[in-house]
Amino acid sequence: MAAAPDDVRNYLLELQNRICAFLQIEEGSSTFREDPWHHATGGGGKTRILQDGAVLEKAGVNFSDVMGVELPPAATAQRPELNGCGFRAMGVSVVVHPRNPWVPTTHANVRFFQTQQPSEEASWWFGGGFDLTPYYGIEEDAIHWHRTAQSACAPFGPQLYTRFKAACDRYFYNAHRREARGIGGLFFDDFNEGGFKNSFGFMRSIGDHFISAYQPILARRKDLAYNEAQRRFQLYRRGRYVEFNLLYDRGTRFGLESNGRVESILMSLPPLVRWDYSPEFSPGSPEAQLYTQFLQPRDWLSNAPKSSDPVPVTFS
Amino acid sequence: MAAAPDDVRNYLLELQNRICAFLQIEEGSSTFREDPWHHATGGGGKTRILQDGAVLEKAGVNFSDVMGVELPPAATAQRPELNGCGFRAMGVSVVVHPRNPWVPTTHANVRFFQTQQPSEEASWWFGGGFDLTPYYGIEEDAIHWHRTAQSACAPFGPQLYTRFKAACDRYFYNAHRREARGIGGLFFDDFNEGGFKNSFGFMRSIGDHFISAYQPILARRKDLAYNEAQRRFQLYRRGRYVEFNLLYDRGTRFGLESNGRVESILMSLPPLVRWDYSPEFSPGSPEAQLYTQFLQPRDWLSNAPKSSDPVPVTFS
Repeated sequence: MAAAPDDVRNYLLELQNRICAFLQIEEGSSTFREDPWHHATGGGGKTRILQDGAVLEKAGVNFSDVMGVELPPAATAQRPELNGCGFRAMGVSVVVHPRNPWVPTTHANVRFFQTQQPSEEASWWFGGGFDLTPYYGIEEDAIHWHRTAQSACAPFGPQLYTRFKAACDRYFYNAHRREARGIGGLFFDDFNEGGFKNSFGFMRSIGDHFISAYQPILARRKDLAYNEAQRRFQLYRRGRYVEFNLLYDRGTRFGLESNGRVESILMSLPPLVRWDYSPEFSPGSPEAQLYTQFLQPRDWLSNAPKSSDPVPVTFS
Repeated sequence: MAAAPDDVRNYLLELQNRICAFLQIEEGSSTFREDPWHHATGGGGKTRILQDGAVLEKAGVNFSDVMGVELPPAATAQRPELNGCGFRAMGVSVVVHPRNPWVPTTHANVRFFQTQQPSEEASWWFGGGFDLTPYYGIEEDAIHWHRTAQSACAPFGPQLYTRFKAACDRYFYNAHRREARGIGGLFFDDFNEGGFKNSFGFMRSIGDHFISAYQPILARRKDLAYNEAQRRFQLYRRGRYVEFNLLYDRGTRFGLESNGRVESILMSLPPLVRWDYSPEFSPGSPEAQLYTQFLQPRDWLSNAPKSSDPVPVTFS
């Protein structure tokens, strides 16, 4: 079966609406602002941003559908033969930076690429995934997150969760820090297995399950009490998010290389960030446990939950 | 005359002391912390950081002298024939992020490289410069900054200021924003003109004049009153500093690629940063004037000062 870009486009537009809707319900008062935009070489997008909310300090839910005459290097790192092809790229990208340090930051993306090589058939593939970046690790949330990721994959093959969970751990890695960005989730790319219908179904399942993965965590942690030291740790850890996105992220590089809309691409950057020089955390503190218990690749579906009682944080 | 690394090293260590001393006097209460460190493949450094000061929100003055068996790509962008050579790199790097939005952020660096190609003589060169990143532009300060830069260059040749001022404007440029990082200053690299004695003298002149360029600006602006909106604009503009350093800066990339000490390399990142989505500034406001009057390449030595009366800032 041939690729049907209109079906994908319609799904993505509907997904953008559904994600904004559930975030809006959890947020309450503040609302999304929408900026439509056009791309220099064809197509465009709708950027939706909510800023300075009571629950959501910053949330971006972007739809884009852009065409170009030359696929930029960041999009063809794994497929050098496509370098320089005409392309169409559409997707929805989500980044949520909650105000409460007990609620993890999340990122999700689903995308569809079509390329046209001179005198050849168009080729196509899907990509995407979702990942979670906690500031204070909570086992129950991590297990729920990965169980939902597994459910998203299960109908499409028994190995997909394991494969794309491992890819996510590899991808969201701050090599200069030798540190995972978060607790991972799913990451897939160049996916056209089982033909268009199956691959599109898999992409839809990832999009749909993102909502059921994140919504309960946001709902049950957004009103937890936190103190100034915990807020400071959150702002400090957000620095790692910036480092990853600007030093390594292919989506960011693809956007900047393809002359994308800078404000839409960099909506992923946190609203407020600290860089402290060489802070130290007491062994056994929740801050230290983030590194030792959560930012290590882990099989979240077979480990029994461990208790982790919060203790006060000290900054050196 | 052959290169004399010990003389360079001694000058750099003394420069680090002098820079810390004048910053300490302007700061007052808070003091520098020193962390000595060793490099995996030889040499090491002394990182000095002052954080959370009354005047200096964050200041780093780093000395390093490292050896390696293979020069990383970021160091040889202009000299591909040196790729893979053994090297010695020493330098002092300074980044000052003042608390008061009326005081510009500054960066200075002086460095000395020596490479050893198999069966060949060692080759050497100097690099460095200093640049200024205001949040609220003040003509008098910009003119003083560039006059001092010109004085630093004048004894070494009539064209050097013009040449290295232009190189600075080219280098400190956020291409994705089509925006200068600041008002520039001097930037030079691969410099061995006139032999070792002359080149070393030029590098010393840059190091010495950095202090006379920045100290008066810091001293006369550090106690100016500012409001919350001005502080917010400062934090927002600091985001551009992060974007430049992580997306483009060769020093940062050289450090990360050569397995440098991450906390010393990233000391350049500001202590507290905002990313606001697409803020708008009233035409004619000091915020808008920063973009129109200061972040444009400009001949600061022939333009007459213009008046710029502050007006209230509005964030959309």
